[in-house]
Amino acid sequence: MQKPSIPKGTRDFTPEEMAKRNYIFDTIKSVFRLYGYQQIETPAMENLSTLMGKYGDEGDKLLFKILNSGDFIAGVPEEDLLSRNSVKLTKELSEKGLRYDLTVPFARFVVQNRDKITFPFKRYQIQPVWRADRPQKGRYREFYQCDVDVVGSDSLINELELIQIVDEVYRRLGIRVCLKINNRKILSGIAEIIGEADKIVDITVAIDKLDKIGLDKVNEEIASKGISQSAIEKLQPILHLNGTNREKLAQLKEILAASEVGMKGVEEMQTILDLCDKVSVSTPIELDLTLARGLNYYTGAIFEVKALDVQIGSITGGGRYDNLTGVFGMDGMSGVGISFGADRIYDVLNQLNLYPQTNKEQTRLLFVCFGKEEQNYSLPWALALRNEGVNVEIYPELAKMKKQMGYADSKHIPFVAIVGETEMANQQVMLKNMMTGEQELVTLHELKARIM
Amino acid sequence: MQKPSIPKGTRDFTPEEMAKRNYIFDTIKSVFRLYGYQQIETPAMENLSTLMGKYGDEGDKLLFKILNSGDFIAGVPEEDLLSRNSVKLTKELSEKGLRYDLTVPFARFVVQNRDKITFPFKRYQIQPVWRADRPQKGRYREFYQCDVDVVGSDSLINELELIQIVDEVYRRLGIRVCLKINNRKILSGIAEIIGEADKIVDITVAIDKLDKIGLDKVNEEIASKGISQSAIEKLQPILHLNGTNREKLAQLKEILAASEVGMKGVEEMQTILDLCDKVSVSTPIELDLTLARGLNYYTGAIFEVKALDVQIGSITGGGRYDNLTGVFGMDGMSGVGISFGADRIYDVLNQLNLYPQTNKEQTRLLFVCFGKEEQNYSLPWALALRNEGVNVEIYPELAKMKKQMGYADSKHIPFVAIVGETEMANQQVMLKNMMTGEQELVTLHELKARIM
Repeated sequence: MQKPSIPKGTRDFTPEEMAKRNYIFDTIKSVFRLYGYQQIETPAMENLSTLMGKYGDEGDKLLFKILNSGDFIAGVPEEDLLSRNSVKLTKELSEKGLRYDLTVPFARFVVQNRDKITFPFKRYQIQPVWRADRPQKGRYREFYQCDVDVVGSDSLINELELIQIVDEVYRRLGIRVCLKINNRKILSGIAEIIGEADKIVDITVAIDKLDKIGLDKVNEEIASKGISQSAIEKLQPILHLNGTNREKLAQLKEILAASEVGMKGVEEMQTILDLCDKVSVSTPIELDLTLARGLNYYTGAIFEVKALDVQIGSITGGGRYDNLTGVFGMDGMSGVGISFGADRIYDVLNQLNLYPQTNKEQTRLLFVCFGKEEQNYSLPWALALRNEGVNVEIYPELAKMKKQMGYADSKHIPFVAIVGETEMANQQVMLKNMMTGEQELVTLHELKARIM
Repeated sequence: MQKPSIPKGTRDFTPEEMAKRNYIFDTIKSVFRLYGYQQIETPAMENLSTLMGKYGDEGDKLLFKILNSGDFIAGVPEEDLLSRNSVKLTKELSEKGLRYDLTVPFARFVVQNRDKITFPFKRYQIQPVWRADRPQKGRYREFYQCDVDVVGSDSLINELELIQIVDEVYRRLGIRVCLKINNRKILSGIAEIIGEADKIVDITVAIDKLDKIGLDKVNEEIASKGISQSAIEKLQPILHLNGTNREKLAQLKEILAASEVGMKGVEEMQTILDLCDKVSVSTPIELDLTLARGLNYYTGAIFEVKALDVQIGSITGGGRYDNLTGVFGMDGMSGVGISFGADRIYDVLNQLNLYPQTNKEQTRLLFVCFGKEEQNYSLPWALALRNEGVNVEIYPELAKMKKQMGYADSKHIPFVAIVGETEMANQQVMLKNMMTGEQELVTLHELKARIM
């Protein structure tokens, strides 16, 4: 007899876990909708021609590939079999792979469905992705991504609205966060000004360590990357940048005066911060020049959200990009988007104990019955409550009181209605509040009022 | 440049399609919850040891298998490579497969999580499944299943509640249906009485054709299966069964009097029909002896739901089974469940044009702005409406009026608020009803009242 298990790095979700996950996704979705974002879904399997080469060599390795159906080995040349080259054989044995992220499928979707969709196209997508990564704590081979993007619009109103979405989602979830913001154009301006345009990644990585290792070590590291002494000197005012966002911007305006792209970045940042003021965004926003996620991908604003009360990586992030769909033959499609990290948000809510006490998935009332007659007596009561939208169960088996109460307990059902001969004779039930232990005999009319 | 496409038999879902699908799933889920069913999810990938052998030889072939990661070819013996036996090589190249249905993963889940869950365990599960079937109209390689089951309880209250769920789901969706019901024990009783217990499938298949080919042809077909003339004679009263469900049951009681299992089936059927009367199920229920879905799997009640106003196969079906989890080493776990066919329900709602005019996914109001100043003016208005839960968009680009109105049209947005200089000066917007074409100047306070 086989002992059942699931592949490593994958998970089952029990009803309790699902209720929590649904709470997160429902909260996020309803905020997305407030801003006119609409859901799409794409297939779990994509053609390997769509996926390969989009995530680097390492990504190609981490794609889960689907073995071709039928007699997949028939057409493979004997020399290829005997050469035992897994990379080459993959192409002959497989033509489909599992979705690795939501970005590439989204780009493919936009191009393939360009005639069916309305631009600017505001979409959200919440689906699992699969990666053959080595599983470890907090890293899974199957996990949900939750992306929201608008493509076909350059307006900074979109950046603002994504910040408002972050603000509202975390307000609703009760998680205190700060939002870090940067702009790729400012980073480009800095590299331009110091005359090291091609070293922008090295510089950003080093700046990122300022808090940890201090100014001297940062300068050492930058020098070790082959950046000239004069460039490092020019960089010093940027490393000393301080004060409020406005103050930082004022300093950047002076430093970057000679860089067109840099000044464009400063202007964009200024506009976004002004817009945030207009709608009183309450999440603290910090201009952070060390923020450089996906640097080669982003072309404008870059965002990252951190939880203030839990030590955990970023829980949301994203930015503006150009040419999402160029690789699929459709140029000039720029956009901006962010991604919510569902697994981390789940952990944060757990650690801070922020889940609501009750949720719509739960049963509100259980009828505890001592016999078939009592069950039948409960049926119209249960129906009347369900018709009012109340989640109700009748314990289906003829079990001991203790077992039935234990069922209510373990399902966190807040009320039970106990039905015995006396209750039936008086057209009542004995209502018990499982939190307080209080009991009282009630009619159907009273029951509704008590539990709703 | 590659022209993007998706694997055959798979689909993208556009926002409009997703809104319709979400409407179906949300309706079904909220009814499931009324009856205390809770959601679970299982991984897309299962170990092949969990899946293989559970769906017959044909099913084994139709499983999508995942190519092992890394240097998958290294350990495969040369003779196996050269033998080119795809079935044998599958075992060496793959150890995981994609979920083929929700039943086997559910059984695996129950066994693996037996200590975490509460019995009777009432769960629903709505997830995609994958089958390497030849794609054709209405048959896909990726499609959602929507299953609801209770395990660990023999009570017929469960059968009743599943019927109530069917009743309420289709009432809410506005689809007129009838529910056909049979009982495997009655079929066993019939086979027993006529002395042909092993021919039960042949007999049921033939009876199924009664309406189409008539009594004589049915008898011919039964005889051709090697069933004795005396058995066929004994079968005649069953073929002539008619009248109401009660009348049919009365006749069956006489015919099956000598069969213990048959009489048990009649009694179960009687009880279920009695319970339905107690809660006034409004869906017409028809006792149909020809109903025999998954005969080898079901052990008690068998259900099937047909739409009355559309020619399409069954849109919901299921029944009672024994020993769901025996194959995973946990015996005696009986249960009952049904499955809703989401794709067919989608088609029925489309054909009958039963989707609600508006849905919660849609944007309710679009701000049409003639300049950046107008956009900025709209921001606090939009925020005020969103704070009341209204889905609102501001057209982000500075585009011509016609383009902005076209955007509202194609997203089916029912109201637009046009903002120009005059409106700003008067602290108003020009509200246009996109259905009626009516326009009026309104304040923010009036706007809320008009569109909510």
